[in-house]
Amino acid sequence: MDYLALMKEISRSSPTKIVLIVIDGLGGLPNPEIGRTELESAHIPNLDTLTATGVCGLADPIAPGITPGSAPGHLALFGYDPISCNIGRGVLEAIGIDIELQPGDVAARGNFCTVDKKGMVTDRRAGRISTEKCTELCKLLDGISVNGVNISVYPVREHRFVAVFHGSDLAPEVTESDPQQTGFAPLLITAVNPEAAKLADTANRFIARAKEILAEQHPANMVLLRGFSRQPDLPTMREIYKLKPLAIAVYPMYRGLARLVGMDIARTGTTLADEFTALKQNYKNYDFFFLHIKWTDSAGEDGDFGRKVDVLEQIDKALPSVVNMEPDVLVITGDHSTPAMLSGHSWHPVPVLICAKYCRPDDVSEFSEPAFLRGGLGRLNATQIMPLAMANALKLNKFGA
Amino acid sequence: MDYLALMKEISRSSPTKIVLIVIDGLGGLPNPEIGRTELESAHIPNLDTLTATGVCGLADPIAPGITPGSAPGHLALFGYDPISCNIGRGVLEAIGIDIELQPGDVAARGNFCTVDKKGMVTDRRAGRISTEKCTELCKLLDGISVNGVNISVYPVREHRFVAVFHGSDLAPEVTESDPQQTGFAPLLITAVNPEAAKLADTANRFIARAKEILAEQHPANMVLLRGFSRQPDLPTMREIYKLKPLAIAVYPMYRGLARLVGMDIARTGTTLADEFTALKQNYKNYDFFFLHIKWTDSAGEDGDFGRKVDVLEQIDKALPSVVNMEPDVLVITGDHSTPAMLSGHSWHPVPVLICAKYCRPDDVSEFSEPAFLRGGLGRLNATQIMPLAMANALKLNKFGA
Repeated sequence: MDYLALMKEISRSSPTKIVLIVIDGLGGLPNPEIGRTELESAHIPNLDTLTATGVCGLADPIAPGITPGSAPGHLALFGYDPISCNIGRGVLEAIGIDIELQPGDVAARGNFCTVDKKGMVTDRRAGRISTEKCTELCKLLDGISVNGVNISVYPVREHRFVAVFHGSDLAPEVTESDPQQTGFAPLLITAVNPEAAKLADTANRFIARAKEILAEQHPANMVLLRGFSRQPDLPTMREIYKLKPLAIAVYPMYRGLARLVGMDIARTGTTLADEFTALKQNYKNYDFFFLHIKWTDSAGEDGDFGRKVDVLEQIDKALPSVVNMEPDVLVITGDHSTPAMLSGHSWHPVPVLICAKYCRPDDVSEFSEPAFLRGGLGRLNATQIMPLAMANALKLNKFGA
Repeated sequence: MDYLALMKEISRSSPTKIVLIVIDGLGGLPNPEIGRTELESAHIPNLDTLTATGVCGLADPIAPGITPGSAPGHLALFGYDPISCNIGRGVLEAIGIDIELQPGDVAARGNFCTVDKKGMVTDRRAGRISTEKCTELCKLLDGISVNGVNISVYPVREHRFVAVFHGSDLAPEVTESDPQQTGFAPLLITAVNPEAAKLADTANRFIARAKEILAEQHPANMVLLRGFSRQPDLPTMREIYKLKPLAIAVYPMYRGLARLVGMDIARTGTTLADEFTALKQNYKNYDFFFLHIKWTDSAGEDGDFGRKVDVLEQIDKALPSVVNMEPDVLVITGDHSTPAMLSGHSWHPVPVLICAKYCRPDDVSEFSEPAFLRGGLGRLNATQIMPLAMANALKLNKFGA
């Protein structure tokens, strides 16, 4: 079933408001020392109270067993099929540093690397040069023009950068130059189809120019490019859901993903309190709010069980300010699980809670993975969360007569 | 997966009998004053006893969040994909007044309307003329012949009628004449593809003739047509399931939907008792029975919580007469939820109970939405109910060796 097409057909605009709070990396695993997950360990009375009034369940961002990256995890939450809407590495890196790509631009992920006198790669990361050094070197490469194509080069972090190719007739289906191992020369980039010939040639000439410019630099005397990709042309949430959506996110990656689906981006400071203030300030002017909270995921990625518990408790304390605005639909979920026990994203299904006037509550009153197993939403796919939010906001017409 | 194709491949005829009782609008929502749903409020000991012996769950007629109309709700229960088998408005109106469409017929939903001297629509419903008046005006238009196409016109209710175009080479892909707002002239009907040119021209000429005939009538001096559609050519339940199916339904819409999938239609009176009597009388001659009970939905649509509870209790009292016939498989479910709190169809999943000798019972013993959350069927799609009924009737061969 083409869920988005169905949404587009039956969605209707209305004054009701939906707040979607995404607690990044929300789900966890039991800490073997205490036998409880991060959520079960946290003192989160406000989340428990909301759970008692709402309907809950566990969502698979992609499918059981599949660990999602941030991009597919979020696209699924916005209702987009995360497999067919997959976003290339280059575009994702660009989005992650707040670059607004134009239609037709091709972005590539770059590494500064070290090559020896024979041109063989000796270090794919150029000794992880500092971000300052990377910034300096990017300035040397930024603005090179080849074949009428202008190449912008932006530093990311340490040896990593983004190259954006602006020009006409650039198809992104090209191979990468990174040999993925040392002792080999960077690979010639080749076109996978005839349309991509111009980009392949342009990229190879750019790399040759970069090699000349960097010749006297050490250890970063060469570049490797991969993940050539173009921004996908996704239908916007306005088109599909007839919503006026706003994104509130501290980190650029999540603002970029929101921009991809046509959300406006709120100005916000860098703290949880700042994000909730931004929600309050913009509450009148939008009917859909995506509020992204990063720090649970960061703690999980660091394998820091205690810090993840702390962040969950901070979120819980901040929640009443949202509840007091009385959104018609409040959804609290995550883009994927990040158990501290795994120090990384995982495949485990993610708790999802929907609070709304007509949500048919279940008897769960504890916000945790094991409690949500008994929830009224059951086990669902993350792409079904938006249709449920829309239904609960009474923003969907009946299908068929 | 093409479930119907699989069913066709592995189904087999056998003497076992399946009774599918569809309690229209079965699921509900808690009444905030008492904290219980209609089902939780009703005294339904027979349903509870059946639940204790059977296996239960909650079914999505289409998908989570999607509120179905009656047609997709029923097609899903019969095992047909309700999205790809969607039925046009004109056909549905025809079905709803017991018209048996022939292959090739195109049906349109009509409104009598009022136009001023310049031909602008001033009232799209002609002041909601009486059904008697509508019947009288339909007689004036019935039987008009244009381009070798004969047009039958049937009154529905108040200003509404159905026009059926009988003729060859009529493709239904045409636009509608209803401008959907006053102050505009009725729209010229146009063909969306070349095959539909004949119908577009025929419909426009019919409308012109209707305008002449109605010229002196007031306020119903013009017609508007929309929802042109042809009856879908669905494989029958006999072909798919090798069943001999009978429908028992008081309301024409449900008889029409049953006819669409090839069921025979039982003669029945207008009460619940009449329907159960019809089941008993026909029990020997069929092996599948669809028994439709409308009044739960009507009460829900009216927002009448108490009346819905009453109807549920009446159904419960009537059930032993079915149980005593000892059908091999008894399925009790609904086509969608109609919570009195919403006064309309809703997206909430629908209770489904299967009682059969080999059904692997769960430990649920209360027929209600929250209890069914713990049922052995889990959360399923309504199109999966027929395969389960067939399996429990031992009417399916093993798939693969």
